[in-house]
Amino acid sequence: MNIQDEIRKPELLIDLEKTRNNIQFMLRKARQNQLVFRPHFKTHQSIEIAELYRQAGISAITVSSLDMAAYFATAGWQDILIAFPINRREMECINQLAAQVRVSLLVDNLESIDFLVDHAHYPVGVWIKVDTGLHRTGIWWQNGELILSCAERMNNSPLLAFQGILTHAGHTYQAASPDDVIKMAEASKAAMLNVKRYLQDHGCRQVRVSIGDTPGCRLLSDFHDVDEIRPGNFIFFDLEQWKLGVCTAEEIAVAMACPIVSKNADRKEIVVYGGAIHFSKEMLMFEGESIYGLMAEKEGCHFSGILNDCRLLRTTQEHGVVRVNDSIFHQYHIGDLALIYPVHSCLTVQAMGEYRDIYTGKTISTMVQQRKNDSLL
Amino acid sequence: MNIQDEIRKPELLIDLEKTRNNIQFMLRKARQNQLVFRPHFKTHQSIEIAELYRQAGISAITVSSLDMAAYFATAGWQDILIAFPINRREMECINQLAAQVRVSLLVDNLESIDFLVDHAHYPVGVWIKVDTGLHRTGIWWQNGELILSCAERMNNSPLLAFQGILTHAGHTYQAASPDDVIKMAEASKAAMLNVKRYLQDHGCRQVRVSIGDTPGCRLLSDFHDVDEIRPGNFIFFDLEQWKLGVCTAEEIAVAMACPIVSKNADRKEIVVYGGAIHFSKEMLMFEGESIYGLMAEKEGCHFSGILNDCRLLRTTQEHGVVRVNDSIFHQYHIGDLALIYPVHSCLTVQAMGEYRDIYTGKTISTMVQQRKNDSLL
Repeated sequence: MNIQDEIRKPELLIDLEKTRNNIQFMLRKARQNQLVFRPHFKTHQSIEIAELYRQAGISAITVSSLDMAAYFATAGWQDILIAFPINRREMECINQLAAQVRVSLLVDNLESIDFLVDHAHYPVGVWIKVDTGLHRTGIWWQNGELILSCAERMNNSPLLAFQGILTHAGHTYQAASPDDVIKMAEASKAAMLNVKRYLQDHGCRQVRVSIGDTPGCRLLSDFHDVDEIRPGNFIFFDLEQWKLGVCTAEEIAVAMACPIVSKNADRKEIVVYGGAIHFSKEMLMFEGESIYGLMAEKEGCHFSGILNDCRLLRTTQEHGVVRVNDSIFHQYHIGDLALIYPVHSCLTVQAMGEYRDIYTGKTISTMVQQRKNDSLL
Repeated sequence: MNIQDEIRKPELLIDLEKTRNNIQFMLRKARQNQLVFRPHFKTHQSIEIAELYRQAGISAITVSSLDMAAYFATAGWQDILIAFPINRREMECINQLAAQVRVSLLVDNLESIDFLVDHAHYPVGVWIKVDTGLHRTGIWWQNGELILSCAERMNNSPLLAFQGILTHAGHTYQAASPDDVIKMAEASKAAMLNVKRYLQDHGCRQVRVSIGDTPGCRLLSDFHDVDEIRPGNFIFFDLEQWKLGVCTAEEIAVAMACPIVSKNADRKEIVVYGGAIHFSKEMLMFEGESIYGLMAEKEGCHFSGILNDCRLLRTTQEHGVVRVNDSIFHQYHIGDLALIYPVHSCLTVQAMGEYRDIYTGKTISTMVQQRKNDSLL
């Protein structure tokens, strides 16, 4: 039986060849620029996929929650940055984890450092989060004084080791073109180097600079004076990255397989089993329409380019409505599988909780179930 | 230790008193109008919460997937409507389930009936899905001829029992006002009764009429000639229903508890641990802004009204950015919990996978983990 026949309900297909190529591309770039490559694992959330990084020689990783840190620690990852502001309510778990592996944390205010001074029981690395334009968390880069105070405040505890300054220039996702991404990434980098100089001028000796977003890391060519990159999404990419001009459709390494359950000839719509709980409700504006996915060209369960005018326009809990072109409408029948690229692969992975390898048919698991069961810490 | 102190990361709080009241309200309405009350279980997805319905005398239920049907069948539910177009790829599972409990299915085309004639091994009830304006699935209500052909085609198998016609008037969610909801629901009902008469005029004897959406079922007062209602969301409600004028803020029975991890005084923003993977990415237009949630007035973990100008404006994977008013900005500190009503409770339940009872502190589980593990069928 081939994979296509085994699929009964929505599944997230993964092409591990594309995945490996995506890893290799970023790894080469990091090596050429003498950067520490600390990939963000929130995109794949899987111990098995993490092994691809280990095989590529990666040992330092980024995660977005303490649960995720604990999950990867159980698989032997020893150098973990939790790229999320310290959640005081999890301090006990932070200490448990820091007793076992090298943990780095983020702070963006003095109170959190004071809290750490009082509550850390084991050595932890601490990065100061700097806002270079996303306006989510972080100290605004022009506020060098506060950043310096934070760095100095860490001296109050021998357990807190100041690592440097870290930014996530996620505003690049709002860019209008690849050139625009590059401009934003350059400006973000310049801001960071400015902060670094300020800190060095005021007596901080070792100030490392860590930058993050996939669009910037992919398109930027000059990483002079940057120490570390932390992109995550590039491992799979998705329609958002494709629309930004950050990747080609052929590089997208995951796609949803969705059974067709209804067709409407008047509206040229096919209805798939595959809705908001599978794709997530992440929306993208594309040629004036809100879309939740685009259909892929397929051969069995292999996906490559993007079909013309075949758009997932609406999703409810389990349903997806795809408006297709005439030719696809007649080619696809009820019971067939439609392959659909997600808008945002990180959220689709989270929603699905597992992958199906299109070459072997095997299931690849993630931490999603385990985290929900809260069985890790 | 009180519940508030136990919460370490985002949790979905449930007020079971409000939940019971919401059930009682709809139950009374169903009884007064002599309707079969077949609540949709996709909102709560929980065997424990289902018990509240059982205690209220409910025995017939609606679900949105075969996995959900199997989950509730294991808990003793014997009369289950799967309100989703038949997915041919799950026919083996449909047969397994139909061997154990009374299963009803939806069709909206002749081919699916032929497929059932060929593949059903046990008796199943079959409803014809009718489109009265949502334009998702279903045969357009004016196409009486095709609906009649579908009903007649079921005679080709002694295992298929025609139940009647069913609609989900989900377009009421686009209504501009409660009056507008009522007008849409009235029009949808009129269309259904039109189809019923057409079928009866052409020899169909028993044609039941089943209608579904929460806004219509809540606001409609005349259910004459309707046989069954299938609302689901009313058990919890959410901001979408509140904005529509379908419920009060006090009736909303679930809210997210999110630890505050950062604050920005310039932007009057608090950043919470609670993002797209917790709330879902369901968005609502509210006073000209896209929102993902609104902060609730709280007392401990009890939530009641809605705070003025405290809006969850942005979510990324784990972060939520809430712009708050001056007074709230000063009242809430890093480490505190913000209680936030979700836009769409069904999707938030799915994302969270479990609840915390605000009276007892106990965890209430759902099928989400089990479904992901595919351990049911």
